[in-house]
Amino acid sequence: MSTKQISVVPSFIAGQWWTPAAAGGTEVRDANTGELLATVTNDKLDVAAAVHYGRSTGQQELAKLSLHERALKLKELALYLNDLRKDLYEVSFKTGATKIDSMVDIDGGIGVLFTFSSKGRRELPNSNVILDGPSEPLSKDGSFVGTHIYTAMSGVVVQVNAFNFPVWGMLEKFAPAFIAGVPTIVKPATPTGYLTEATVRLMLESGILPEGSLQLLSGSARDLMDHLDYRDMFAFTGSAATASKLKSHPNVIDGGVKFAAETDSLNAAILAPDAVEGSPEFEAFVKVVVTEMTSKAGQKCTAIRRNIVPAELVEPVIAAIGKRIDERVVIGDPRVEGVNMGALASLEQLADVRSAVQDMIDAGGELAYGRLDAPAVRVAPEKDAVAESGAFMSPVVLRWADARNPLVHSREAFGPVSSVIGYENLEEAVELAAMGSGSLVATVCSNNTDSVRKLALGIAAHHGRVHILNRETARSTTGHGSPVPHLVHGGPGRAGGGEELGGIRSVKHHMQRTAVQGSPNMLTALSGVWHTGAEQRLAGCEEFGGEAKYTHPFRKSLAELRVGDGFASDLRTVNLEDISEFAQKTGDTFYAHTDAKAAEANPFFPGIVAHGYLLVSWAAGLFVEPAPGPVLANYGLESLRFITPVAAGDAIRVTLTAKKITPRVTDEYGEVAWDAILHNQNGEIVATYDVLTLVEKEDVTYANFQS
Amino acid sequence: MSTKQISVVPSFIAGQWWTPAAAGGTEVRDANTGELLATVTNDKLDVAAAVHYGRSTGQQELAKLSLHERALKLKELALYLNDLRKDLYEVSFKTGATKIDSMVDIDGGIGVLFTFSSKGRRELPNSNVILDGPSEPLSKDGSFVGTHIYTAMSGVVVQVNAFNFPVWGMLEKFAPAFIAGVPTIVKPATPTGYLTEATVRLMLESGILPEGSLQLLSGSARDLMDHLDYRDMFAFTGSAATASKLKSHPNVIDGGVKFAAETDSLNAAILAPDAVEGSPEFEAFVKVVVTEMTSKAGQKCTAIRRNIVPAELVEPVIAAIGKRIDERVVIGDPRVEGVNMGALASLEQLADVRSAVQDMIDAGGELAYGRLDAPAVRVAPEKDAVAESGAFMSPVVLRWADARNPLVHSREAFGPVSSVIGYENLEEAVELAAMGSGSLVATVCSNNTDSVRKLALGIAAHHGRVHILNRETARSTTGHGSPVPHLVHGGPGRAGGGEELGGIRSVKHHMQRTAVQGSPNMLTALSGVWHTGAEQRLAGCEEFGGEAKYTHPFRKSLAELRVGDGFASDLRTVNLEDISEFAQKTGDTFYAHTDAKAAEANPFFPGIVAHGYLLVSWAAGLFVEPAPGPVLANYGLESLRFITPVAAGDAIRVTLTAKKITPRVTDEYGEVAWDAILHNQNGEIVATYDVLTLVEKEDVTYANFQS
Repeated sequence: MSTKQISVVPSFIAGQWWTPAAAGGTEVRDANTGELLATVTNDKLDVAAAVHYGRSTGQQELAKLSLHERALKLKELALYLNDLRKDLYEVSFKTGATKIDSMVDIDGGIGVLFTFSSKGRRELPNSNVILDGPSEPLSKDGSFVGTHIYTAMSGVVVQVNAFNFPVWGMLEKFAPAFIAGVPTIVKPATPTGYLTEATVRLMLESGILPEGSLQLLSGSARDLMDHLDYRDMFAFTGSAATASKLKSHPNVIDGGVKFAAETDSLNAAILAPDAVEGSPEFEAFVKVVVTEMTSKAGQKCTAIRRNIVPAELVEPVIAAIGKRIDERVVIGDPRVEGVNMGALASLEQLADVRSAVQDMIDAGGELAYGRLDAPAVRVAPEKDAVAESGAFMSPVVLRWADARNPLVHSREAFGPVSSVIGYENLEEAVELAAMGSGSLVATVCSNNTDSVRKLALGIAAHHGRVHILNRETARSTTGHGSPVPHLVHGGPGRAGGGEELGGIRSVKHHMQRTAVQGSPNMLTALSGVWHTGAEQRLAGCEEFGGEAKYTHPFRKSLAELRVGDGFASDLRTVNLEDISEFAQKTGDTFYAHTDAKAAEANPFFPGIVAHGYLLVSWAAGLFVEPAPGPVLANYGLESLRFITPVAAGDAIRVTLTAKKITPRVTDEYGEVAWDAILHNQNGEIVATYDVLTLVEKEDVTYANFQS
Repeated sequence: MSTKQISVVPSFIAGQWWTPAAAGGTEVRDANTGELLATVTNDKLDVAAAVHYGRSTGQQELAKLSLHERALKLKELALYLNDLRKDLYEVSFKTGATKIDSMVDIDGGIGVLFTFSSKGRRELPNSNVILDGPSEPLSKDGSFVGTHIYTAMSGVVVQVNAFNFPVWGMLEKFAPAFIAGVPTIVKPATPTGYLTEATVRLMLESGILPEGSLQLLSGSARDLMDHLDYRDMFAFTGSAATASKLKSHPNVIDGGVKFAAETDSLNAAILAPDAVEGSPEFEAFVKVVVTEMTSKAGQKCTAIRRNIVPAELVEPVIAAIGKRIDERVVIGDPRVEGVNMGALASLEQLADVRSAVQDMIDAGGELAYGRLDAPAVRVAPEKDAVAESGAFMSPVVLRWADARNPLVHSREAFGPVSSVIGYENLEEAVELAAMGSGSLVATVCSNNTDSVRKLALGIAAHHGRVHILNRETARSTTGHGSPVPHLVHGGPGRAGGGEELGGIRSVKHHMQRTAVQGSPNMLTALSGVWHTGAEQRLAGCEEFGGEAKYTHPFRKSLAELRVGDGFASDLRTVNLEDISEFAQKTGDTFYAHTDAKAAEANPFFPGIVAHGYLLVSWAAGLFVEPAPGPVLANYGLESLRFITPVAAGDAIRVTLTAKKITPRVTDEYGEVAWDAILHNQNGEIVATYDVLTLVEKEDVTYANFQS
């Protein structure tokens, strides 16, 4: 794999690679050297065919797999890419990224695949229907019930990415769509799209992905939006101006295309008054600010643009930032040893950023650190590392006399540029942060819990993420600027109003939530999860619904077990001696189990009652099948609620019903959740819970053991 | 309260009632008689002041209450309105609503308040920060953790409602916004806004609502959108054309106003092939279709516009619908005894609906039942009940030779009008339903689980709600057309893409979800919920973190208890005899506890292990304070997981920490969830769970008992 031979960056559409007949189009250059790498054009490409192919072949092939099977493929893909990531680093250097920048992009992207693969299999059912929330009884007799399901959107998702993270930006959008079962058409930003293309090529070569699940459109998005409707999603990362244009498209306004945007925002870092010079928080703050200015040469939508600090700390903060840059930052070609800050993505970007800084200076900003007339305050030791044709820029810190100058809060220089403004009190700090009109992330730096509470809760509604930094997290933080796959990425207002990542939350963004109402039998049929009131096939005690023709469900492997299979026990009477003995043996001598007078005075108990723990222990005794069989272990309980107290002389019985069956794709067993319900001798409900077990797929282990 | 004196329908803005100096504006008439009721104009009203008042006073006053306190106010309001609802019926008749229509609107609206009040207090914390999902460890040492919180949006929500449900439409949007803590500006539809005004007047007179939490704008929304930004939400119900205009506003496109729309859709009812004539499903289908045509005179965004039935059942279905209308439906002034279908909302509506039907006939539809040239096929017995100046219309059924005629799937007659089309197989039925391009709701009528699964899962991604109708639910269903507060209302595509109701889901739509990252101490301070790794104040065993200066937490009432208060127990050794005895007493003789050879062969156990139930029972014995005190009962367990097996000779200890404290607003006690963690003698985690208890607010009951 090499990009040397690429003259036009190709696309992959409708199952094949596509390159225009003639070269030409937009030129793409090495950010460090200015060398021409490739051109990009897709004028004659049939984008409608991509949409059609995704909606037909892509949807069909993805639907053949379950949520777990797709999640597992992401792990296989991650392992495959992990082995080849060094090839991608070589390509990545050309974008101006340092080794560490490339790792954030490439290893970070692969990390998203691992996390989503694991979460997908741990947190989702192994089917294609996700239940959302508990069921809701809608009729008194229990015959009409409501619940919510998620099913995959029936179209495609078009993913338009920014130039700064050509690999991570693609994979973080692709992973949740893929698990949901929605085919992706990825359109990278042209300046660094060759790195995305190299990655997509590896992904396709892996042979892991179902046909139609991933297509690549190199170059312009053209009229792609014209071909989308309410079945489809458009996930955009980039400038607010482009987002605005896309969001105004009739297919979004009237056609119902689901549109999600993540646009740059003027993210803040707030230093609280307790974080004075010399404190661990002051030091951590300066460190994170310099990291955000220099990592990826400040070309991050999450970078800190506004440092909001106590008025008296404005000058100390500026001085400390400058000192740290002077001591640590070496600008140059990332392929040169010792360089830790690379070039901007292109000379155009460089010109844009310098022009934005000039605007801010013209409006009242003051250059407190750095310069605009040379590539760096301090360059790499080898002067060749900073070629004149490279897009290198010095870090810049701006000081503002007026913290409310509109340009501080609205003009973004998408490079190594950050402003410092002062505040008088916490209320003003919150106000200033909110003047960004909605941001992706803010750091709150303080070791005072009251200040953190006031600042973080004050700004929360204006932010997608709040990063709290103090001495406890200075070393362990994943950083202000790094979205993590577990947490949502996106923010309100200027940040675009979208939400990505956040684990399974983003999988669900690619699905439709639908309320379903019907009988327990019908909801069971739809969801694959047994609903209270639906048909049961109970072994066990005939008096309580058991039928002799049914086998005890613990004797069934996953190959035989069906939701609704269950067991009804006999009644067992609880005597006062049982309660006393249980109290004595366990040590749980709570007065409700031992002192009749005190127990009677308790508002909830009729007198001495059995321990809840006694009841569930006895219930296990009532439903268990002692001999080895496919049920391997009880690994937990969920949602245990004690409803009616059991007094001495009362009796209990248990009904156990297979509720949710989740065979693992990677093991010889899976999870079975059993609905357990305890009744007393009067048929009143004593307790309800789910028993969680591991059950073999085939009755093999114990067939072997027993033979 | 009477509307007789109202000449201009007033607004309630910035804390006071507002009426224009001069009358005039749009005329509003009794739908049954044509009598002039009022005029509506608000030309000189300062709508910007309403936004400002909501954002300032409204936000401040709502923020003084917790989620539970606001939820409780909804119950008080519901009780207040419930006592006065007959006054509202009188007003409602004028809109053309029958008594039953009025109950759906008024009692239904009050019911939403009750449901949200109850759900808000049962499912939300008693604070103003909602945790979303579990916390996520982000560093290996546990010092850096992430989680998600919801906090209220910091602006207002403008609620624009449709004319058909002037009370329910307002209350179903108001309730979740109010609980979230976001002030409402409600703008009813002009033709029936006088009923909304009458209801708002009662709500304000109740004195229950905090200042600024509810404002009313009667008449046009004017330039309201010009004054909103990303802090605000605009929740619209009405026509797709108006939604389109609003959604294109720069403050939505660029300003980030959160926009949610619920627009009419061409909802389908699908009859499956098993539901042949004479089956209970066929009968239930016809019944629901006629109900949806005549209830509210078919003026419901959820009404059935497309009946998709097996080709051979088209004629029987049409005949059965006609027969049922003939037998049951009496059209007229709803104030006349025996009338069960009222007028359309206005003569303009009547003209619109007739014109839509004519368009469909011109395009190939055939009038299979009903007429356009007279008010009804069969009118009320007293002819005066159908005044010539009333907006009465006959129910109409259309037959279509071509099931794919575009007008069936796109042209809506918002009145008592429904089409019947035929399909050949289930795949075609799904396709036809999807041709509505996104709908609020569809009914699937079948008693065959395979057909239900194919149809319901096939159409789910195109629908906000799927109502499954069969013999089990024919009598208990809440109906095709009735959104219930527990389930989401809204749908993709043509239905507007919004989501309302659905219990707490809609509360969260008025809040911002924010990822927060920081140390366990900081996340605890922010959320009020103890996070693993945060500071603990443990009583109990000093060897395991207990300190003599701390009281056992079970001795603390809610007035004293703080999250982080806890107890560390001593170690207790589990002997083989304990396990054997527990097996024998409980009856849980599963081989892992009784048969060494079989237990060793199990992939998860080292040999004989203690019962999980033994461990949690003993843990209770280790942490309990036996004497009466503020802890009243253990009412359940959550998320119990057994991690490391405990063999004979191992020992266990437990650490219990107050995690979440929820004082009830209506009781003398509240819920406390305790984090429980069991360790073995090597410090390995044996089990984790939450213990749920009821704890007194003040140590009163037992102070009394003990004295």
